[in-house]
Amino acid sequence: MAKVIVGTTMSLDGFINDRNGSVSQLYSDFETLHDTDVLQESIKNTGAVVMGKETFAMAEDPDSYAGNYEYQVPIFVLCHQAPAKHPKETETLKFTFVTDGIESVIRQAKAAAGDKDVTVVGGANIAQQILRAGLADELHIDIIPLLLTDGLQYFDNLGDETIQLEKIDVTNVGARTSLRFRIVQ
Amino acid sequence: MAKVIVGTTMSLDGFINDRNGSVSQLYSDFETLHDTDVLQESIKNTGAVVMGKETFAMAEDPDSYAGNYEYQVPIFVLCHQAPAKHPKETETLKFTFVTDGIESVIRQAKAAAGDKDVTVVGGANIAQQILRAGLADELHIDIIPLLLTDGLQYFDNLGDETIQLEKIDVTNVGARTSLRFRIVQ
Repeated sequence: MAKVIVGTTMSLDGFINDRNGSVSQLYSDFETLHDTDVLQESIKNTGAVVMGKETFAMAEDPDSYAGNYEYQVPIFVLCHQAPAKHPKETETLKFTFVTDGIESVIRQAKAAAGDKDVTVVGGANIAQQILRAGLADELHIDIIPLLLTDGLQYFDNLGDETIQLEKIDVTNVGARTSLRFRIVQ
Repeated sequence: MAKVIVGTTMSLDGFINDRNGSVSQLYSDFETLHDTDVLQESIKNTGAVVMGKETFAMAEDPDSYAGNYEYQVPIFVLCHQAPAKHPKETETLKFTFVTDGIESVIRQAKAAAGDKDVTVVGGANIAQQILRAGLADELHIDIIPLLLTDGLQYFDNLGDETIQLEKIDVTNVGARTSLRFRIVQ
């Protein structure tokens, strides 16, 4: 059964971009990140990816996902409307644009992932929707040694109840600290 | 030269108490905490303590600090007015009530600490003042596997500039993860 994994890279004070909307301070290790065990393990275990429309649109050329994106698996984009031009696909990377909500996008991604994991990438909005709906199984947070002091908070609008976590693993990946938690339902 | 160490125990989403002002969810390991290496090392290295008036007032009986508080060292309380009755002291635990601001309380605590550390305990307000003023040398954050979703944010009102940190150490203490950073000035 596919696990749904939500996660991000954030500053110690919980921001996923800075006051100017830039993520560059959080990814000064970007060049070396691809070769880390943490990312390679994620790639190996991921059977489907879920992302929001904003994350999808961050690629200058949507056709560049095919062959270049780290996860060459089915990608489910939660959006209000599919793009006019369907992006390029490969044998393993197919795009599905899902317009009927968070439960639907997770259900479709789980079906595609088989016994592998569903990895949710990107922004705060989709992660918050998934956490609020109780649809996530694990939370993977990389903490960067910075206090950005302002920007977009990852953990926000999570509802009125404490969400209990269980620590699974802590790994140091250079300056970043990768924390993995199981979400206690 | 005394290092100034600022720190707290917070939820993964950065809260140091919950929506009701309670810290109990963050200290479910309270009974065992005193015997951990992290706290014992802090006690051994601490030459003076700085706290705010709110933290000082959390003790039901201010006389109970003498002999019972984990840090039996000079304590400097930043406040607007000293209490009417000076609390009980011992040979090693003396109280100084400092009314002329954050720079003064840190300077006095450093002088008292000698070559040991100044440990800043307690709330968000005093930590934020010290971080904003660039008076802290290290930041020690214990992360508890919880999303409290609301409450008092520890990292807030920190000014307009990114504060660079350098990871010193990561230790697992049961469910909590103790992160230590040097503050890059």
